[in-house]
Amino acid sequence: MNNDYVHGYSERESARLADQANCLNELLHHDSIFPEHSIVLEAGCGVGAQTKIVAPKNPDSKFISIDISEESLQKAKSLTESLCIRNVEFQVGDILKMNFPDEYFDHILVCFVLEHLPKPMDALKSLKRVLKKGGTMTLIEGDHGSAYFYPRSDAAQEAIRCQVELQKSQGGNAHIGRELYPLLVNAGFSRCAVSPRMVYVDSSKPDLVEGFTRNTFTAMIEGVREKAISGSLIDEATFDKGIQDLYRTSESDGVFCYTFFKGVGYK
Amino acid sequence: MNNDYVHGYSERESARLADQANCLNELLHHDSIFPEHSIVLEAGCGVGAQTKIVAPKNPDSKFISIDISEESLQKAKSLTESLCIRNVEFQVGDILKMNFPDEYFDHILVCFVLEHLPKPMDALKSLKRVLKKGGTMTLIEGDHGSAYFYPRSDAAQEAIRCQVELQKSQGGNAHIGRELYPLLVNAGFSRCAVSPRMVYVDSSKPDLVEGFTRNTFTAMIEGVREKAISGSLIDEATFDKGIQDLYRTSESDGVFCYTFFKGVGYK
Repeated sequence: MNNDYVHGYSERESARLADQANCLNELLHHDSIFPEHSIVLEAGCGVGAQTKIVAPKNPDSKFISIDISEESLQKAKSLTESLCIRNVEFQVGDILKMNFPDEYFDHILVCFVLEHLPKPMDALKSLKRVLKKGGTMTLIEGDHGSAYFYPRSDAAQEAIRCQVELQKSQGGNAHIGRELYPLLVNAGFSRCAVSPRMVYVDSSKPDLVEGFTRNTFTAMIEGVREKAISGSLIDEATFDKGIQDLYRTSESDGVFCYTFFKGVGYK
Repeated sequence: MNNDYVHGYSERESARLADQANCLNELLHHDSIFPEHSIVLEAGCGVGAQTKIVAPKNPDSKFISIDISEESLQKAKSLTESLCIRNVEFQVGDILKMNFPDEYFDHILVCFVLEHLPKPMDALKSLKRVLKKGGTMTLIEGDHGSAYFYPRSDAAQEAIRCQVELQKSQGGNAHIGRELYPLLVNAGFSRCAVSPRMVYVDSSKPDLVEGFTRNTFTAMIEGVREKAISGSLIDEATFDKGIQDLYRTSESDGVFCYTFFKGVGYK
């Protein structure tokens, strides 16, 4: 795996991920509830942005949260310690080469991870090995093809395309949200169900304007500026116009739409 | 106004609109409930596809449903009579030139109409005149920019673009769903609230696969084939591949997403 993610590890990026988690918390995780005394694997916990939401919602369960990056795990540890979250054990680990015994976990949670993997099906199969029969696999992913807005802007769509192409060039898939159902079914899970979690933002929702349109989505696209331009994916003027137009959607008559997908399947 | 709508009046089209209404009924109208004894204007009722859903949900209210097309109104009358719906009065009328007195209606409902109008704001202002103070304006519209699917297909997106361009060439706007909030606010309504109604379809939902992906959306795009090709908007092979790819999304591993928007504002 390539550590040079599109979603980097800068301070600004950490702040962005924290904003995103606060803002989308209930939308994504109101139903991330596991039976008491579960042992749950959080695969690809990163800096703990989801861990800090889900672990406190399940105080009687134990989480083992793994990530391939030691640097991210250190941040995740600091974050959860600062919040006095005590039901999480962090371990360095690669989803494709885990040392856990077969059927070790009651449930598995994978948030914003498959989008970065060249072979998400291999990851799902590897994870399925360590999941108990009858246990659930929960996947949460975004889909950049679900982003549309008012006023419409071709430049903004071009700027988004840069993020999609950069992620693709690193083996990822920024459109994976819509694929969760076939991924779960093809990995052999049963009773699969996917629910979209649409974020609809207009100026009657100032928290989402600030927390999602500006500080999550637009900031993420803005973050690929240098790579997009140096990689000749777009010219500077178009990219900057695109970002300007994305910020324009956060004005009083603007609208921004984006959809996350949450899928659950049973082993 | 131009009677040669993109959405024509053929038998097949009537069947499609009926399928659509059955399938999306609850998603769009579970909350289309008006206070008892309301007088409600349904503006642009067409063949009665929404009338037949909303009128029975409000048996103690009276609907006056207007449309510019006498032919559509005849179909709407036959439809509601066949269903023994008795709380609707149909009248030929143009939204921009209504004879009703000021503040005549308690509430107004406008479904899938603004998308066809060259000046939706003029329509809203005209309708506002006949709405009582404190009454609600309810708007429901789709947005073709909200259509995305798995497997992805450039040809399918091109075929959809043809429908969008044909609608635009007739003065309409197939992307109006995302604009409902600014339209309501700019027309002077207060306490405006828009809620997206996303249709998410995978093969665990066979009714939606059949009723929405195939018989509503794909059939609608397929319906512009002749005009799109004769108007040189696309070549025949690409269009046909696009339709084939849209049907492909209704197979067992396919996914289809589309979002309607419902907006309510108070006068």
